Amino acid sequence: MIAILITIMVLELRIPEGADWNAVRPVMPVFITYVMSFIVLGIYWNNHHLLIHAADRITGAILWANLHLLFWLSLIPFATGWTGRNNFAPLPTAVYGGVLLLCAIAYTILLRTLIAAQGADSRLKEAIGNDAKGYTSLAMYVAAIPLAFVDRRLSWTLYLAVLLIWFIPDRRIDKRLS
Amino acid sequence: MIAILITIMVLELRIPEGADWNAVRPVMPVFITYVMSFIVLGIYWNNHHLLIHAADRITGAILWANLHLLFWLSLIPFATGWTGRNNFAPLPTAVYGGVLLLCAIAYTILLRTLIAAQGADSRLKEAIGNDAKGYTSLAMYVAAIPLAFVDRRLSWTLYLAVLLIWFIPDRRIDKRLS
Amino acid sequence: MIAILITIMVLELRIPEGADWNAVRPVMPVFITYVMSFIVLGIYWNNHHLLIHAADRITGAILWANLHLLFWLSLIPFATGWTGRNNFAPLPTAVYGGVLLLCAIAYTILLRTLIAAQGADSRLKEAIGNDAKGYTSLAMYVAAIPLAFVDRRLSWTLYLAVLLIWFIPDRRIDKRLS
Amino acid sequence: MIAILITIMVLELRIPEGADWNAVRPVMPVFITYVMSFIVLGIYWNNHHLLIHAADRITGAILWANLHLLFWLSLIPFATGWTGRNNFAPLPTAVYGGVLLLCAIAYTILLRTLIAAQGADSRLKEAIGNDAKGYTSLAMYVAAIPLAFVDRRLSWTLYLAVLLIWFIPDRRIDKRLS
Repeated sequence: MIAILITIMVLELRIPEGADWNAVRPVMPVFITYVMSFIVLGIYWNNHHLLIHAADRITGAILWANLHLLFWLSLIPFATGWTGRNNFAPLPTAVYGGVLLLCAIAYTILLRTLIAAQGADSRLKEAIGNDAKGYTSLAMYVAAIPLAFVDRRLSWTLYLAVLLIWFIPDRRIDKRLS
Repeated sequence: MIAILITIMVLELRIPEGADWNAVRPVMPVFITYVMSFIVLGIYWNNHHLLIHAADRITGAILWANLHLLFWLSLIPFATGWTGRNNFAPLPTAVYGGVLLLCAIAYTILLRTLIAAQGADSRLKEAIGNDAKGYTSLAMYVAAIPLAFVDRRLSWTLYLAVLLIWFIPDRRIDKRLS
Repeated sequence: MIAILITIMVLELRIPEGADWNAVRPVMPVFITYVMSFIVLGIYWNNHHLLIHAADRITGAILWANLHLLFWLSLIPFATGWTGRNNFAPLPTAVYGGVLLLCAIAYTILLRTLIAAQGADSRLKEAIGNDAKGYTSLAMYVAAIPLAFVDRRLSWTLYLAVLLIWFIPDRRIDKRLS
Repeated sequence: MIAILITIMVLELRIPEGADWNAVRPVMPVFITYVMSFIVLGIYWNNHHLLIHAADRITGAILWANLHLLFWLSLIPFATGWTGRNNFAPLPTAVYGGVLLLCAIAYTILLRTLIAAQGADSRLKEAIGNDAKGYTSLAMYVAAIPLAFVDRRLSWTLYLAVLLIWFIPDRRIDKRLS
């Protein structure tokens, strides 16, 4: 379903009316946010894929934790389009961060639910460790949201920083479980 | 395909024109119905997933019963968008309930067709039992539709009640078949 | 991909502007064509699914025959929307039939390519037999297209007749191969 | 995900307002570009499918190379719609070629990453050989982009030529690995 969300998002890139560079200009902020959200959803896609395959048991609680994550991810195209069309205004910037924060929280919940279901000495638990990367991201999003009303560039710098932290697929899972 | 429907539904969340809270306000009813329909489709997704995996034999009749269910589910995004954009007006509220009722009937037909195809002493038949949960939901939807023209809040309360009944994946199947 | 096409098609069901029956009325022809195209695509989905699973060998020619079928199927949502919004006018009716004809031809090509690739005494060849059902459908579509400019009801009766012929999944494949 | 992109692209085929041939005429350039992009994405779909199945090991780098390819492929519906609606104007023609070039580069990167991950004497490496077909396509796209501002027909002839080169699925992989 994350693949579908990524593809749906491209529909927010409205086709310019004219055929010259002036017509392309208003599409640029939408394009920049599209690139960013594509990478965010790509990171979730890769890690989610590794996570689900690392699980030996699927329970009802895991199905709901997964659906909960998909709910917040499904709002990314909306938040992306709104930010892009309003030239990174403060409120859409904060809402974009809020959606990212809720996605990150939902991912953490899914991770905890998965680990709990696998039993005490699972490979998954060992592979994730203390999840410093996850908690650092949450803290950075929490800081970025109010900063949108101070200086939007601070928020976008933080969103970008989280992106860079996660750019590499979760080697913890990748290495220990393969 | 249910995953695609959920994702398509997010396209009904039209991006607000402005970048302040006033611009967000008209999106709120659509957002509330989006959340509700997301959960409804999520419940069908989880249970449908468990059902199909519990079946040992797939026949032509099952394929059609499945397609019949998907037809009514495919109208949920339409009914959701119509209700949300008209502030929960009576007719869209009744139509929304009608679509939910027809989905529930189609699910019951699929369930019966699946059980019939598995033979007399199947695990699936035993797991479902007398399907009290399914028939209660049908009765509640039948009551909710005419109530939309009396007081819409009664209908929405009933829709929400059915949601809560089904929120937990079908433990009957989950437990006995795993 | 047929599942995605079916779901995309629901986007043609534009949400009515008002909340009363008058607002619903203009949506009705689109809804009727939606139901019909849903069944058409559903028939292709079921039969395509059985076909692909019945194949023991996949070649480059099969991949292209499959993509060719998907191309014509991908035009069904477009033809459906055009017909529905123009109240079954002659030209859209003929174009709708033309798309259905080309889908049926592409399906026949895929079927022949698959049989050829499986070798002389394949189960698939035996199961399909002389394909009377396929060739009857082609003849009915060829007749229906020019009739759209005489009396549109004749065309729609023929489209509906083909639908009824195919409503049951291809028992030939279903029975002999399961 | 390539299947979803192809299907999303059909949404660019806006339904004509009237029901006669005059209403269809403005849709024609969009239809022609739709056919072309459908074939381009179909070629990627088929080859991508063969590539992924030919890989014995999937690493984090492969996942990212894959996502990188999907990013550029996701812009094809946008570039297609822009070109089609502006009657093959120079700038959209050049941008369309630019997107195709970046897709081809990303495909080459994915191919190299896959080969590197499979080890020195992999079947994949042997099957691809010196990849003359890939590098010829890149050269043709590089030539076609500036030519869009000289004579657009030259660009479209080159795009079409690359299409013909790739029309047959990658027999190198198909034959040696099956």
